[in-house]
Amino acid sequence: MSGVTQPGKIWGVGLGPGDPELMSVRADRLVRGARHVAFFRKAGRAGRARAIVEGMLAEGAVEFPMEYPVTTEIPLDDPRYNEILSAFYTDVTAHLIALAKAGEDVAVLCEGDPFFYGSFMHLHDRLVGRVPVEVVPAITGMSAAWTATGRPVTWGDDVLTVLMGTLPEEELTRRIAETDALVVMKLGRKLPQVARAVEAARRLEEAWLVQYASMEGQNVQPLAEAMDREAPYFSIVVIHGRGRRP
Amino acid sequence: MSGVTQPGKIWGVGLGPGDPELMSVRADRLVRGARHVAFFRKAGRAGRARAIVEGMLAEGAVEFPMEYPVTTEIPLDDPRYNEILSAFYTDVTAHLIALAKAGEDVAVLCEGDPFFYGSFMHLHDRLVGRVPVEVVPAITGMSAAWTATGRPVTWGDDVLTVLMGTLPEEELTRRIAETDALVVMKLGRKLPQVARAVEAARRLEEAWLVQYASMEGQNVQPLAEAMDREAPYFSIVVIHGRGRRP
Repeated sequence: MSGVTQPGKIWGVGLGPGDPELMSVRADRLVRGARHVAFFRKAGRAGRARAIVEGMLAEGAVEFPMEYPVTTEIPLDDPRYNEILSAFYTDVTAHLIALAKAGEDVAVLCEGDPFFYGSFMHLHDRLVGRVPVEVVPAITGMSAAWTATGRPVTWGDDVLTVLMGTLPEEELTRRIAETDALVVMKLGRKLPQVARAVEAARRLEEAWLVQYASMEGQNVQPLAEAMDREAPYFSIVVIHGRGRRP
Repeated sequence: MSGVTQPGKIWGVGLGPGDPELMSVRADRLVRGARHVAFFRKAGRAGRARAIVEGMLAEGAVEFPMEYPVTTEIPLDDPRYNEILSAFYTDVTAHLIALAKAGEDVAVLCEGDPFFYGSFMHLHDRLVGRVPVEVVPAITGMSAAWTATGRPVTWGDDVLTVLMGTLPEEELTRRIAETDALVVMKLGRKLPQVARAVEAARRLEEAWLVQYASMEGQNVQPLAEAMDREAPYFSIVVIHGRGRRP
């Protein structure tokens, strides 16, 4: 008798900023109990999400590394770049769907919070409506960053603006000048332009560069002292709010 | 022989959005192990932070409810309002400092993330430099809110703006028109003005009202359907980003 298999669920499990103790109790439970875990990684690397759960996976857990296709030879603005990535997402999604249809749950390991600038959304779009999907929110990298500065980032009626360093410099300057509290992510090679924008907005003395928040090597320094460098992947610029009251 | 007591530490423990399983592993460990727990509450109420940890405290844990002075008879803009609150914070801080100096660790229970629009900052300012203080970041209420909508809040180069409903209506309108993704907190009686501002910014069709995210009674509805009401304390307005690319 071939019964209908109850489909499994694809879990987008937010792992938080990097410290395994900052995973939620639910994420911890799901990761330790998972028979299938999937995670993005660059070819030849261990994978940052996978590294967070090192030592936590159940014996016999099946790992599905989703390796980004090597695209360094194609410029970001070439339409083929998006085509290759899109094909990759569709391909790995097909595997996840097959697992779910066979009745298996899969924990997709996500750095940070899956719905906040996360890679999981590319899978989520392709999974929704086809198999059960559920997302577990997590502590964001920016929460770990402002906690590392040792001061509240916002209070009272402060406006918080979150920007990506990849925005045009003039837009960064304008928005940085207009906000109370600020977070800038996706720094990398854009750190010098972000620092210039912070300076042009007359906020440089208030700005901090936080590297590896909650992880080994955590470092907090005035942005003014790091202006001309590249930033490592795990870097966030923070300006604290002014605590304004209505 | 009266030796010098090693001071204890005041922990600002972020509990997350409300679901106890969304506490971090570290917060869970600290709460269960605490000999002293402190938490804010309104007079005559159980306290929202305390409710999250119901059933988790160790036997014999000493509870220190920090009851807000009754101030409903004084208008918010009366200088005495701030004076009374300030005296209250100084008073409860003195008790926490006394505990720490006697060698006791204290877990101060904080809804959400302590450094993100949290009440803990009023204690933090008064504790730093006097006794050891450490903050445990947490999943924010807004993360739970956008997760509840079932869609990513930001991707690509989206700008996220976080606003308080207590800002002037014209400022809300201007900032809502200029952002990609939006979070509005502190709604309460300001919900009608926030909804008007969202409408004036021509974003009403994109806006969601999330109530009790991650808690019993979680509810997600179009903001347009809830415009004229008061919102409960745990309410957040969310507009998803547009996924713009550089």
